[in-house]
Amino acid sequence: MTHSEAATPSLKDLTIDNITDNVNLVNSKTPSPRFKFLLERLVIHLHDYARETRLSQDEWLEAIQFLTATGQMCTNVRQEFILLSDVLGLSLLVDSIDHPKPPGSTDGTVLGPFHTHDAEVLGHGALVSHDQNGEPLLAICTVKDAHGNPIPDVKIDIWETDSSGMYDVQHVGREKPDGRGILTSDTEGKFWFKGIVPVPYPIPHDGPVGKLLAKLNRHPMRPSHMHFMFEKEGWDKLITALYLRGDPYETSDAVFGVKESLVVGLGRVDKAMASQYAGTQEGMKLLTYDFVLVTDKETAQLRDGNSVEALKKLNMVVRIVDGLPVPDVD
Amino acid sequence: MTHSEAATPSLKDLTIDNITDNVNLVNSKTPSPRFKFLLERLVIHLHDYARETRLSQDEWLEAIQFLTATGQMCTNVRQEFILLSDVLGLSLLVDSIDHPKPPGSTDGTVLGPFHTHDAEVLGHGALVSHDQNGEPLLAICTVKDAHGNPIPDVKIDIWETDSSGMYDVQHVGREKPDGRGILTSDTEGKFWFKGIVPVPYPIPHDGPVGKLLAKLNRHPMRPSHMHFMFEKEGWDKLITALYLRGDPYETSDAVFGVKESLVVGLGRVDKAMASQYAGTQEGMKLLTYDFVLVTDKETAQLRDGNSVEALKKLNMVVRIVDGLPVPDVD
Repeated sequence: MTHSEAATPSLKDLTIDNITDNVNLVNSKTPSPRFKFLLERLVIHLHDYARETRLSQDEWLEAIQFLTATGQMCTNVRQEFILLSDVLGLSLLVDSIDHPKPPGSTDGTVLGPFHTHDAEVLGHGALVSHDQNGEPLLAICTVKDAHGNPIPDVKIDIWETDSSGMYDVQHVGREKPDGRGILTSDTEGKFWFKGIVPVPYPIPHDGPVGKLLAKLNRHPMRPSHMHFMFEKEGWDKLITALYLRGDPYETSDAVFGVKESLVVGLGRVDKAMASQYAGTQEGMKLLTYDFVLVTDKETAQLRDGNSVEALKKLNMVVRIVDGLPVPDVD
Repeated sequence: MTHSEAATPSLKDLTIDNITDNVNLVNSKTPSPRFKFLLERLVIHLHDYARETRLSQDEWLEAIQFLTATGQMCTNVRQEFILLSDVLGLSLLVDSIDHPKPPGSTDGTVLGPFHTHDAEVLGHGALVSHDQNGEPLLAICTVKDAHGNPIPDVKIDIWETDSSGMYDVQHVGREKPDGRGILTSDTEGKFWFKGIVPVPYPIPHDGPVGKLLAKLNRHPMRPSHMHFMFEKEGWDKLITALYLRGDPYETSDAVFGVKESLVVGLGRVDKAMASQYAGTQEGMKLLTYDFVLVTDKETAQLRDGNSVEALKKLNMVVRIVDGLPVPDVD
């Protein structure tokens, strides 16, 4: 770094009114137009926030300490920043922007912080949960395209809590995954497994995010649900969950994830079904759902169109590069 | 939490367009109007940011990982989130908002992450730095009010790096403070001490903030400076620093702290001075500065007035409670 490089632009006497433009000018030397755009909007919003709230130094320091504590709460099995994003509604918003759904396809929802990459690959009919205290559940589902054609060979990641409302990773001394598994759809697009009836549970609230919720007089509960993630080359990754109708927290999910289209009532396994599906009994709780995936191509078109339209409304002139907007400067 | 409490308002089917209002509605149950205001503006800016940039899930995850790493870089002697705030210009902005300076008073600037609370209380003439490799410096300063009246008994916290550009806390095995000390102004408002001539140095850039700067093609250097903090009951706390004229980074400070009014040229101790100030020699580098403090009352009036004016321009109707704006709702 030579003196002349260091001195462009000249930064001195920055004030409440000129600091934002100057910080963005310094940041504009990044070679990536997208990263430049992301940082530019970040600095504008961050500074506008301080200017609008007239943020005090004490409040700023409290925020610094909160963010520090949030980072330090994270371990390889706990992601407090994802929790923070979840309770502020950011996670759902980003999913909605990145994975727009055309009519007739299955809605997405929050990933949450409890997905892991070590779930076992299971065969159809396998036990996803080994919790003896859980209420047994048979799940029979399909995955299809918007025209009703089955999609085979989809990798389906499933995860749920145990009957105490805890994910496996929340138990000290976890030796192997439980309450989670990976299935693959068959030629009919079908997959089935045995789990337990999901229960409502609190998100971890013994850390900074829990303190924030308490300060906001908000409860930390999530309604009963089971997570599903669908992946197959050429298809838009679907991160979703099914929620149980009538749950006490159905309309007050701490992380804003519930969509009416994802709320299901459970049925009962009948006699014929019990004889068809190994290891099930008549009267056992039954979950059925037909998931509908969208191609990568259709999602990309929809996303690009949404982006252009939304940013036009904001009077921002952009072009789409690799599926993401950057300012259109000549 | 009863069902009816949990169910107000009904949160389901949140979309890109309605999620912000709904999150703010849930958050509005906090009893503090100021905290409600801070959260409301935070959620609005956070969501607007995602909507404007069409933030992707991959980018969101990268941000989550960045914030996590930033939190985990923090120790009791390193504050990576303050560094982040500094390099984004937020720290200077917040200081400017919280500590407005009327004409004739000394400008404030960034606190930085290296102030500690364990500096020793020293007498006038004491050595603030014991670094044998530093170039000796005599500092003779005063602290006065806007009318030129001396202010005695002001607590003055002073800190600077050693000649290698490192603060004491950056050295492994630090046993006691060095390069820092606390003085008290005398009846003439005067304080004097011996330190070393400040040198330019990089902010710690082996962590997430350093990676961010590299990605932005920004250097991590701060121009040579010495920190000062002034505290006395009834007077607005002044956090400032003096910068050396002609420093190669004078106009490109990585944390945007330089103000022309704080840039000083060093003089030389003359013969008369050397005989007057114990332990100094003729020819030794000399720093002189007259600091001007503002009363708490005057600062509060100025701050309140600035707040009302700024928010009026933004068409936000507020009232000032305990020195900070909250929305004025009937």
